Parts: sequence; structure tokens; C-alpha cells
Amino acid sequence: MSIGNLTKKTILSQANEAKKAAKSLSLLSSKEKNEALQKIADEIEKEASFILQENKKDLKIGRERHYDDAFMDRLALSEARILSIATSLREVTQLHDPVGDIIEEWNLDNGLHVKNIQVPLGVIGMIYEARPNVTVDATGLALKSGNAIVLKGGSSALYSNKALVSVIHQALVQTSIPTEAVQFIATADREITEQLFTMHHYIDVLIPRGGRSLIETVVKKATIPVLETGVGNVHMYIDEHADVKKVISIVVNAKTDRPAVCNALETLLINKTWFQRNKELLFSELKKCNITIHGDQVVTHHLPEALTATETDWAEEYLSLDLAIKIIGNVEEAIEHIDSYGTKHSEAIITEDPQVAKQFMQEVDAAAVYHNASTRFTDGGALGFGAEIGISTQKLHARGPMGLPALTTSKLCLSGNGQIR
Amino acid sequence: MSIGNLTKKTILSQANEAKKAAKSLSLLSSKEKNEALQKIADEIEKEASFILQENKKDLKIGRERHYDDAFMDRLALSEARILSIATSLREVTQLHDPVGDIIEEWNLDNGLHVKNIQVPLGVIGMIYEARPNVTVDATGLALKSGNAIVLKGGSSALYSNKALVSVIHQALVQTSIPTEAVQFIATADREITEQLFTMHHYIDVLIPRGGRSLIETVVKKATIPVLETGVGNVHMYIDEHADVKKVISIVVNAKTDRPAVCNALETLLINKTWFQRNKELLFSELKKCNITIHGDQVVTHHLPEALTATETDWAEEYLSLDLAIKIIGNVEEAIEHIDSYGTKHSEAIITEDPQVAKQFMQEVDAAAVYHNASTRFTDGGALGFGAEIGISTQKLHARGPMGLPALTTSKLCLSGNGQIR
Repeated sequence: MSIGNLTKKTILSQANEAKKAAKSLSLLSSKEKNEALQKIADEIEKEASFILQENKKDLKIGRERHYDDAFMDRLALSEARILSIATSLREVTQLHDPVGDIIEEWNLDNGLHVKNIQVPLGVIGMIYEARPNVTVDATGLALKSGNAIVLKGGSSALYSNKALVSVIHQALVQTSIPTEAVQFIATADREITEQLFTMHHYIDVLIPRGGRSLIETVVKKATIPVLETGVGNVHMYIDEHADVKKVISIVVNAKTDRPAVCNALETLLINKTWFQRNKELLFSELKKCNITIHGDQVVTHHLPEALTATETDWAEEYLSLDLAIKIIGNVEEAIEHIDSYGTKHSEAIITEDPQVAKQFMQEVDAAAVYHNASTRFTDGGALGFGAEIGISTQKLHARGPMGLPALTTSKLCLSGNGQIR
Repeated sequence: MSIGNLTKKTILSQANEAKKAAKSLSLLSSKEKNEALQKIADEIEKEASFILQENKKDLKIGRERHYDDAFMDRLALSEARILSIATSLREVTQLHDPVGDIIEEWNLDNGLHVKNIQVPLGVIGMIYEARPNVTVDATGLALKSGNAIVLKGGSSALYSNKALVSVIHQALVQTSIPTEAVQFIATADREITEQLFTMHHYIDVLIPRGGRSLIETVVKKATIPVLETGVGNVHMYIDEHADVKKVISIVVNAKTDRPAVCNALETLLINKTWFQRNKELLFSELKKCNITIHGDQVVTHHLPEALTATETDWAEEYLSLDLAIKIIGNVEEAIEHIDSYGTKHSEAIITEDPQVAKQFMQEVDAAAVYHNASTRFTDGGALGFGAEIGISTQKLHARGPMGLPALTTSKLCLSGNGQIR
């Protein structure tokens, strides 16, 4: 099988096929779409050993290239992970299909009937990194919401993704969904990939999912609208009147439950009075969890083993058991720091003072703001939305966890009997 | 008064001032915002002669530069137009303020309270052309929805816009809204202006309003999300089973009522059987309205005085009393033509066959699709939304006429008592 041997012309024709498939896909019933997802899930389980065999090729190349453990873990599939991919697909069949929902319906005085309905976006361009499960998760959500999808996964997962897409196609031929609705861009050539970013006429939206540099590249080079996802430089402000027990439990949960995900805590901003009272307990609890502290001068003065935080510590996600800590005077300073360094994902305050909490919740600009809870709840599953295609950190179209409705748009349908203006 | 003497640094500090003002503006009540709009309306009426005097300077320069009549008309203000600008502002005070509306509210099983509320976008960057009224209309809608605004109008209207903004500022000092919430970029230097397009940290959305080239420049150069507006290459398909009286009345209305607006008809696609039966009547009615026909070979064969349509005729808006006509075989060909040349604004079918109408409405991809009515209804006022900041021709965030809700986003507010995951 040839890998990565693509030209701009091939990509253009793939995008065109997706656009054509999107049209017929947009007319299918929920039942037809659910049956197709079910069939994909079945086929993935049946072909588990083929998928694992192809995944091994990626893992071998990955080891040769000395990717780090975290990266290799994201790349690796197993029987259990394949089962979980299939299970997720079956869960998507249970979600409400927003396509065809009537958003609003009314008559003008002249009798013109206006109906605003939810319709699929059309063609989704999904640009992602190592995780092969995204190939199937994104496909499931796209198809369920009546969209075609053009997949461009990381080149490190090329064998795994090709295998998964061939299994998806094998399933789709048995269903009402045309196989052309799922296109896979099999190249490691960046220049070719970037052609996708300006294919307005064929692709309706680009969703980059991965690290900051991937997302910034897409935003910079795309002329197609982009749904930015995922970068979460998450802060928590510990107010003077924060309950110590809540602080310890929430900080430990937000930092250590899954440090590599985007809703994990990255920077603690601590009120100086609270810090004076509770620093020993806090430091000892963080130490128990093997958290490495990067502190400002006040912190390093009290905890000489802490590393000195630099500009990078405030600006970047760690995605590891590292935590930046800054001691500040009040909630206004917290809001200002978040304005400068936040990525508009999830931000929290811990306090027993409702006025200060209110000010923080109102003034902090983010997809999700928390009072006295862990930021780990910014997640489609945890909030009850079902599976998500990403967590939007931008303000247009969709903010926070994006489920099926984020993959639709609206259409005004006006029916008359000769109305003119 | 110095005009157009700006640097990148000045623009950056203006954007920064807007961002700061947006924070306090987002906390104001509807009452405070309405009072401010009322005050601006009063002040504009009071300063009408000053505004007209400054507008005359732009008109003089425009005549020297030999701008065409349509352009000069868009640029010109009059007592009546100034009154109408003030009236529009007062109408905006009557619209529902979406800020603070609860979109959804629920509790998780663990007691965490989740509230999804509507909040302002923050700072809107408005890029527009000759019409000075956009300066006030856009400001009114932005402020009412709690947003700061950075205005960059066409350089041909520089004196008029500066006058209007100074009057707006004069009004705002008497209100709760900081004057910094309305920033005007007083430059004719494109390179300086384009700096705005990448000021992520300060501007939340760019709204270009004007011709295709303005919009394409913004889309291409911006890294800030763009709400595309306005370009409407509007088609109407006359089906075999179209009622002749409806066709004549709807076509004449859609083409001639206001040919320069974006929901005006540009291309007629006519079923060949209908055309054979009704061509004489159609041509004679179009002639009565002084419409210039650009036809395909079939049309020019039957109407030698018609111009021969070229690729440009199918692809571009005329915005004048010109009309492209193509004779086709069926609704599928109509849909295909619209897929190739449409701008996803407004598209219509005239037919008495409900099946064909249904197919057209379902398969055509546009903000508004019509059956047996004029496309002139794609308009915030006509549909009952109130004033609009533009008509979105894209699929993300807002589609069709964009009123106040399009200038807001959502924010998840989560309140707990120590919940962790």
C-alpha cells in the first residue's frame, strides 16, 4: 500500500467527492445514520486484529523516532481501546439528531411562512495529531449530524488511521451513507495538507484538534472558518476567604486527575493572606501528589525547592504534574492575570465570599467559569452533552464542549404564494 | 484637525482601550445602555448641521475623484438621512437585550449547578465602505449588546465618520458607557488598517461590510474570526410549472425594488418548456422595467437585443438593472448552477409543483431559500428581527440577517461546594 503519495489535485478531488456526498447525506433520516454508525462499530470490533497490526507499524516507527512516552501512549491502540472506540460510536447513536429541528417558525403579516431549521454544516475538515481514536470519534459525530468529513490525522498515526478508514468504508458500503462522505488525506506532506485550508468551495469548517502550534498554524493559514479547540491554560484563584479543605481537594483533583487534558489546572493564583495562613499545608499536600511547583519570588522564598517561574510558565500549558503558583493581592489582580495569560477555556475561583465569586464569574472571559468546583467538568460527557468533537475556546458559533448541535447551522425556508415587498 | 495620521502603536492602544471599556460595558443594565443610545440619537439630531458640513468635505473630495453617482449617493448625508439615523438608534432601544439571558440551566447529579448565559462578544471590529450611517448603526447595535466597537470606515467618508464619532463621544460622556467603547481608526493607510486583522488579543470578531473585494481581503488576511456579510449573487429558478403572473410580479420586485442591495435578484434560471410558452411576455415585462438582459445562446437567439452572458455574468453581482438569464432543463440543473455560482445568500424557486419546490428548498445551500416569493425579504427588518449589523453568508455562528443575538456568545457558569471529578 502506498502511503503519503498525494498531490494537490488528489486532495481537491477528495474534497469535491466529500461535498457531493454531503448533499445526499444531509437528506438521510436519523434511523439511517444510526444504522450506519452501528455498522461501523460492528466492523471495527470485527477487524480489531487488522487494526492492531497496522497500529504496530506506527508504534515501531514511533519508537525508531524516539517519541516520548506520553506521545506513544496517545498513539497506541489495544483490544480495550478498540472496544471503547466502538462503544463511543454506539453512544452517539443514542444522542438526539439536531438535523431538521425547527429553531423558530412564524408568519409575516403578508402570509409569508418563515421556518428556521437546523441543517448540517456540509463538509468538516478535521486536522488532528497522534490519537487514532479521533478518526472514528470525529467521523461518528460528523455523520450523525449529516456532515461529510475530510480527515487529516497526524503522520505518526498514518497506518492506524488508514486501517480505521478502510474499515469505516467497508462498513459504509453496507449502509445508506456513501463511502465518499469519509475522506482520508493520506499524506505527511505539510504543503499538500495546507491546500485544504483554503478550499472554501468544498469545506465549510476546519476543526484543528491538538497542540497550540497545530491550532495556530491552521488559524493563520486558513481562509475557511476555523473552530479553535482545546488549548487550556487553566487558572484557579484562591481567595482570602477560601475554605482550606475545598482548596486542597479541588486543586489536587484539577491538577492530578488527568494532567494531560485541556481542563487540567495549570496556574494557581493565591491571595497573600490565605497563603500566609495555609502555605505549609498546601505545599505538603502538593508534594504528596508529586507536583513540581514553579513559583514566583514569594513562593520560592518559602519553598526553596520550588523552581523559579518564568514568562513561559505563566503563558503555556504544562499538561504534566507541574503547577505554576503566583501570590497576588486580590481578585482584580487575578482577573488581570487571567486576561493576560488565559486561553478562554476554564477558569475557577475558590472562596466563601459570594460577592467576590460573583465578580470573578462576571468579569473573567472564558468558555467556563467555576466557583468552588474542579475545572475537570468542562467536558461534554461530564456536563451531559454526550460525546464532543472538541472544546471550543473561541467565542463564535460554539463555546466550550461542542456536541452535535455545533456541527449544524440554520437555514431560513420561506414559503409564499407570490409575496413581494 | 489632522486626518489619517496614525501609526500601528496608536491602533494597538485604541484596541486596548476598547478591550478595557468592553469589560465595564458588559456589566451595564439594558436601561443604562438604552439611555446612552437615546442620548446619542439626541446629540446627532442636535449636531446635524456640523455633521452635514463635514460630509460636504467628503462629497467635494469625492467629486474631485470622479466617484460614480451610486457611490456619491451612498456617501451623501442630508437632514432626512440624519433624522433616519437617529430614528434607527431609537428603534434599537426597543429591541430585546439578549445579554444575561439564560440559555439553559441544570444541576449535575453531584449538585454542581450549571448555567449557560448569553454574554457580549467583547470587541467588534467593523470594516466598511462609503456609507456614513454604518458608523452609527453598527455602534448602536454593538453598545446595546454590551460590546465595544472599533470602527474602520472607508477613507472616502473620513470627515463624515470623524464628525459622527465625535458626536457619539460627546453623547457618551453624559452616560454610563465609557467613550473608549467606541474607537475610530482615522487612517486611509491600508497597511496600518490591516494590523487590526490580527489583533486577537483585543478584538473578538471582524465584520466586513461592503463589496466582495473588501470581504475577501479581510477573510484572507485576518486571523481573528470573521463574520462574512453581504455578497448576494441571488438566483431564481422558474420551473416548468411556474405560475406566469407570480413569475412576472416576483421577478420584477426582486430585480427592480432596490437593485443595489444584496438580496436583489441577479440571475434567472428558466425551465426550457416554461420559456417556450412565456418568453414574449417575460421579455416585454422586463423591457418595461428597463432591465438589460445578459442571456445564454437560447436567450440571445430569441431576443437579439440581449447581451451575450459570459462567465462574469454568472459569477458576479450586478447591483444594477442588469439580469443574467440561462435556459435549463430541470431543477437538478438549477441546483447545480447555484452550487457553482451562488454565494449562499438567498435563492428562490417559482413553481406550483410542491415536490419540486421541496427538493429545491432541501438541496440548495443558502442562508435563505424561497418558494413563490421575492428574495427581498432576506432582511432583519422585513423578517421582524429588527435592525441588523449585516447579512451573514457563512454557516458558522450566524446565518442570514444578524441582529443583536449574533453579537453575543455564551458562557458556562458552574457553581459548586467542592465538587471534584
